[in-house]
Amino acid sequence: MNTDIAVILCRPQLGENIGLAARAMGNFGIKDLRIVCPRDPWPNTNAIHASVSAREIVDKAGVFCSLKEAIADLEWALCTTARPRYLKKSVYALKDTPSLFQAHPFKKIGFVFGPEQAGLTNEEISLCNGSIYIETSPDCPSLNLSHAVLLCMYELARVTNTHPIQESSAEMREVFSLLSYLELSLEKNGFFSPEEKRDKMKQNLRDIFLRRPLSVHDVNTLFGVFRCLGKPGDSL
Amino acid sequence: MNTDIAVILCRPQLGENIGLAARAMGNFGIKDLRIVCPRDPWPNTNAIHASVSAREIVDKAGVFCSLKEAIADLEWALCTTARPRYLKKSVYALKDTPSLFQAHPFKKIGFVFGPEQAGLTNEEISLCNGSIYIETSPDCPSLNLSHAVLLCMYELARVTNTHPIQESSAEMREVFSLLSYLELSLEKNGFFSPEEKRDKMKQNLRDIFLRRPLSVHDVNTLFGVFRCLGKPGDSL
Repeated sequence: MNTDIAVILCRPQLGENIGLAARAMGNFGIKDLRIVCPRDPWPNTNAIHASVSAREIVDKAGVFCSLKEAIADLEWALCTTARPRYLKKSVYALKDTPSLFQAHPFKKIGFVFGPEQAGLTNEEISLCNGSIYIETSPDCPSLNLSHAVLLCMYELARVTNTHPIQESSAEMREVFSLLSYLELSLEKNGFFSPEEKRDKMKQNLRDIFLRRPLSVHDVNTLFGVFRCLGKPGDSL
Repeated sequence: MNTDIAVILCRPQLGENIGLAARAMGNFGIKDLRIVCPRDPWPNTNAIHASVSAREIVDKAGVFCSLKEAIADLEWALCTTARPRYLKKSVYALKDTPSLFQAHPFKKIGFVFGPEQAGLTNEEISLCNGSIYIETSPDCPSLNLSHAVLLCMYELARVTNTHPIQESSAEMREVFSLLSYLELSLEKNGFFSPEEKRDKMKQNLRDIFLRRPLSVHDVNTLFGVFRCLGKPGDSL
């Protein structure tokens, strides 16, 4: 497919897994590795050792302090989770992703993976456009981190994107700016109440705007809409 | 699918890879692990550690002295290789295996994997019914052993075998007996000549009888045929 693909590892713990994930990427021709807050100092010799012939991917990996920064330039980001039960979020089976990407010609997408032990936080999940899950046996459900990366790369290799380029999708940083503006405006007006529901309300709100692709034009329109709504105008 | 599946690791070198392979099997509900001549003593603590929740698969793994013994009770064995160029052997892309298994209702099949560094020998490949390859990037073609196992397990999980049971397939030990008988008879009659082509000739001969599934009845018939041909009879 003609799409650039990034793999984002959030707070990974073991260098071996980072290296094996890079190798899995290299096996399928994917080169853009991004690491958010690795547990151990970076560069990491275990990662280099485990990457074998994909060493260049490890050497050139970007290191970020937050997931938000790491995915800012993408058009679409999918996180990998066990089926999220408490969050409003579009959920896709991994095996259905080829048809998802065939339907929409993104130029730059990312797959986001949580740390080995605990997975992604709800806050991290809420920054992504959707969530994918890999169906595994209930007796032994948990995948090794590099194995999860590998299966995503393998499925993507099935995608042949033959669609003409449509209107260009907004980068996530643009959508994040829009959401920040909206959240701030709503804060001022006391929207997020009661306090204990605040995070959940924000996460649900994000989902509404992250669920479907927004074009640059859509984002500009929505900025206009929110600005206009926030203006002190004539009361009806 | 209703088929029992075995994973056979030939001469594996690293315990971590054996454990990660077991975990990958467990993720997709496959439990029958067989190990042929592991490099390090068995049981192997690194394998146990890396298997995480699939420890039972490692604990119950069968250990064998030869590939021939390890696959004797199966009906069909596929080895994983880079595209074999010098051997006559049916070759399938991994992504096409679901349709292969949908077409034929085997009761017990196996996937055979070579050691990390060198892969399977031609002799080992010649004992299998066919070979599968996983298309990878030419820049970084070599898959980690546990990654290769994982992709096979993942593809198999797509198979839904809805075919009625047909005539029962012969176990590989029965086909191996038939081949031994045939090779011995041919040896006696000086078939394998010149000497330097002997191995290659045997490997090609095996392929003829291993390429397609043989039923128990087929094997018995062929035994009859070979015995009959070997008899000192009336000259024509």
